[in-house]
Amino acid sequence: MAKTIYIAGLGLIGASMALGIKRDHPDYEILGYNRSQTSRDIALERGMIDRATDDFASFAPLADVIILTLPIKQTIAFLQELATLELKEGVIISDAGSTKSAIVVTAENCFADKPVRFVGAHPMAGSHKTGAASVDVNLFENAYYIFTPSSLTSPDTLEEMKDLLSGLHARFIEIDAEEHDRVTSQISHFPHILASGLMEQTASYAEEHEMARRFAAGGFRDMTRIAESEPGMWTSILLSNRETIVERIEDFRGRLDEIGQAISKGDENQIWNFFNQAREQRQAMEIHKRGGVDSSFDLYVDVPDEEDVILRILELLRGTSLVNIHINEENREDVHGILQISFKNAQDLKRAEQVITENTNYTVVIK
Amino acid sequence: MAKTIYIAGLGLIGASMALGIKRDHPDYEILGYNRSQTSRDIALERGMIDRATDDFASFAPLADVIILTLPIKQTIAFLQELATLELKEGVIISDAGSTKSAIVVTAENCFADKPVRFVGAHPMAGSHKTGAASVDVNLFENAYYIFTPSSLTSPDTLEEMKDLLSGLHARFIEIDAEEHDRVTSQISHFPHILASGLMEQTASYAEEHEMARRFAAGGFRDMTRIAESEPGMWTSILLSNRETIVERIEDFRGRLDEIGQAISKGDENQIWNFFNQAREQRQAMEIHKRGGVDSSFDLYVDVPDEEDVILRILELLRGTSLVNIHINEENREDVHGILQISFKNAQDLKRAEQVITENTNYTVVIK
Repeated sequence: MAKTIYIAGLGLIGASMALGIKRDHPDYEILGYNRSQTSRDIALERGMIDRATDDFASFAPLADVIILTLPIKQTIAFLQELATLELKEGVIISDAGSTKSAIVVTAENCFADKPVRFVGAHPMAGSHKTGAASVDVNLFENAYYIFTPSSLTSPDTLEEMKDLLSGLHARFIEIDAEEHDRVTSQISHFPHILASGLMEQTASYAEEHEMARRFAAGGFRDMTRIAESEPGMWTSILLSNRETIVERIEDFRGRLDEIGQAISKGDENQIWNFFNQAREQRQAMEIHKRGGVDSSFDLYVDVPDEEDVILRILELLRGTSLVNIHINEENREDVHGILQISFKNAQDLKRAEQVITENTNYTVVIK
Repeated sequence: MAKTIYIAGLGLIGASMALGIKRDHPDYEILGYNRSQTSRDIALERGMIDRATDDFASFAPLADVIILTLPIKQTIAFLQELATLELKEGVIISDAGSTKSAIVVTAENCFADKPVRFVGAHPMAGSHKTGAASVDVNLFENAYYIFTPSSLTSPDTLEEMKDLLSGLHARFIEIDAEEHDRVTSQISHFPHILASGLMEQTASYAEEHEMARRFAAGGFRDMTRIAESEPGMWTSILLSNRETIVERIEDFRGRLDEIGQAISKGDENQIWNFFNQAREQRQAMEIHKRGGVDSSFDLYVDVPDEEDVILRILELLRGTSLVNIHINEENREDVHGILQISFKNAQDLKRAEQVITENTNYTVVIK
């Protein structure tokens, strides 16, 4: 049965979601809300949505499913507005906010006595690009799409949402909203604070020690990359997850005190254990496994600084799926000094090692 | 005039340096010291060095230049040993330690009244590989090779060293030893502490919040990559630069306190400024300029998950020099979701944008 889906917020996430829904459900009608006309026009012209409005309330009563793909604050405001409207009985409301507790609590309060189903969600996808013009039907491919079920979420709510979003090719997973916020505070929110803090400290230090700008290399680049994220979004995230993040900050201060004291005392064992434990922990992490971010099926090729050298190697690997390819000849302080190619499995890796070794005189290393 | 060069330590750095010296000075005799026989044999067999010893003192009197490519502690011990030996008059002694003050102070004390020239050095190169077997004559190409002149360094010392090492194709630069240690504490030593601290905090948190392992994505991966560095080396670095590093830790604690209080108070302006300032500072950094690690001549291509798609693009770019290429389809939480190609100059970038746009239907974005 064809449904009517209402997507509020036609930014990169909302627009890409609309396309993903249409991929598996071309018969569904998709309604779109956006404040600015530009994204509305683009979404209409490119067929991402069927009808558009700048009056959020107007389309809400028509929808079988309402998905708010908006900043956290506005998501909360729209949930409150939805509670005042006459919606379809059994409507499913969902969202796409980066923190979940504040949003889920709002929804639980707003819809407690109403014939409304709700499930909080956090699609872990994004891009440096924004707006409907950057739409990408593959944006969510293989990304985690996290649901945070609560008392307004019945099992059929999740089934219907997963069916609706099947065209996104995302990895659906369920977790408690508060636990989601705790986990993301540790692996995302707090690291953003560290990155921005390190960047500010270095900029301030570089005012009197200008070589700091010049010598900053691979490690520093990696550690500060996320300091370039959009400040408004991250301010909202911090504000909607305050206690948990402050607790992570306090915990980390204690860790800095400890290693600082070990350095002051010159306690070689303690410092070595600090570094060694961290190394072992990272090596043991999911991050190294297939399906995680890094891959274990990595091959390193020492390549000369010659034209078309990467092309030559890729020609040898024609037909083999590459998960990742990376080279950086600018700085050899770290592993980026050589061509790193990641494969989907051990067979591809083995085959690649063989074909490169047989056809070139480059050194090939498997880590 | 052919010289005799003595390289003590035939690890990756020492072995690669030997090859680099031979490239421009095939007539020089290179002597090598290494404790373990494996690296000595490899270095001899592959012609990196002409003669090898496991008795450091034995070759020292024969050398015109002695370069210690050893861990910091051993470098200091060998400097002290050299002070007890009868060396060639005017011999140049140098090193390759990652911190400079402790080594330079030792040398100044050891050789104050002797006919010895000394210049501390830190070649900013390395690899995840170690040992003479990993030798790479291109290891230092375009890398900073930092000299830290002191009272034992005459101008001709630097001239002779640069001539000796011309085959490394490195970028020579001079800086005061203490300033070197201050700068590297900020952009390298302290970031290593942050990375390892974050890794340990996360591992500890994940014991009770296991999804932390699963959701860790691009930002977390980048921020903890250097936590996998060799613990022994980093312990030595911290121990030889204690005060400066402890001072950076204290400073950072103050920054954490400040942002923590802003979060506790819910001070939106202060949090926004924190993130925004960091973003502006990073965007303004050398790290974004040509010659830095990132390049401004970056092109982003949205590519489908199809076989040989990178090969197809590189074929279009045949003959154009690539500085960097990167793709990661595993996780789309960050900019790695698309193919990023960096070029040497604006013309190459422009040409690439044109040729890819004309020959494919992929979206091409220039940041």
